[in-house]
Amino acid sequence: MGAGPGAPDLITLRGARRIAEADIVIWAASLVMAECVEEHARREAELVDSSRIAHEDVLALYRRAAAEDLRVARVHSGDPALWGAVQEQYDAAAAMGLDVEIVPGVSAFGAAAAAAGRELTIPEVAQSVVLTRLEGGKTPMPDRERLRAFAAHGTTMAIFLSAARTGQI
Amino acid sequence: MGAGPGAPDLITLRGARRIAEADIVIWAASLVMAECVEEHARREAELVDSSRIAHEDVLALYRRAAAEDLRVARVHSGDPALWGAVQEQYDAAAAMGLDVEIVPGVSAFGAAAAAAGRELTIPEVAQSVVLTRLEGGKTPMPDRERLRAFAAHGTTMAIFLSAARTGQI
Repeated sequence: MGAGPGAPDLITLRGARRIAEADIVIWAASLVMAECVEEHARREAELVDSSRIAHEDVLALYRRAAAEDLRVARVHSGDPALWGAVQEQYDAAAAMGLDVEIVPGVSAFGAAAAAAGRELTIPEVAQSVVLTRLEGGKTPMPDRERLRAFAAHGTTMAIFLSAARTGQI
Repeated sequence: MGAGPGAPDLITLRGARRIAEADIVIWAASLVMAECVEEHARREAELVDSSRIAHEDVLALYRRAAAEDLRVARVHSGDPALWGAVQEQYDAAAAMGLDVEIVPGVSAFGAAAAAAGRELTIPEVAQSVVLTRLEGGKTPMPDRERLRAFAAHGTTMAIFLSAARTGQI
């Protein structure tokens, strides 16, 4: 599930409910505020910081959930459809026979626009929004997805995962 | 504020709270489910269906709010940064001296991906997502934002506001 862009009150009602129902809550403490989890999780829920364990350990928790009929909430920042690395987990959990649900969340680009008091689509000016990231990170960029090529469309862009490399823009 | 993609429990906690605090709730009954508003609005709040009144009437409500120190929640579907037509309202309300806040919401593209159990960015395959719409609607498309040109990047696209013209794709 996506916990939204940061502020604990930008989680959805469904997301908050899924945390409240969970026996195990796995969350990235470096990306998701503690309040997002602590305000909603049951007192007896097991809280696991995913940034301190390996992907295999997360899968081990899913296997335990399948064996012991437990509910797990895996809490990502933003919206899990965007750079959430959820597909691998989704497929693995489904293969274990778990019922899997993805809960969407508010993405950072919408929250940034809201904080700035701006709309990202403006008639006559921009009727599209390109969500992309800079090349040079851990995951390679496909050849046809260069920032310069997207910029040529002259519309709004939201550049993710690139805050440490603004000079490159 | 954005009420999210449709399901009443995909509104954010902040969005629900803003509806609960409002003296006047303006919402598009054709796009936002009644539960989104009715579950949260105070019993004495004035509910206004924006699809039944003109833009000028909405501005008149904002003026009344400024004069009588009322709180208004203007409820849009999805995320207001994307085709929400909020900039005009934001600027008008700010010019009246109202404190204006935009509350972001879950957009339909993230909810559609979640419902399909899919991530929209996949390493080596797609590291960008283009949010766009077909030309031919009420608002013209800028020349450099043609669907064919965006498709040439070979990455994920989410096509909004075009469900009635799928043949055109």
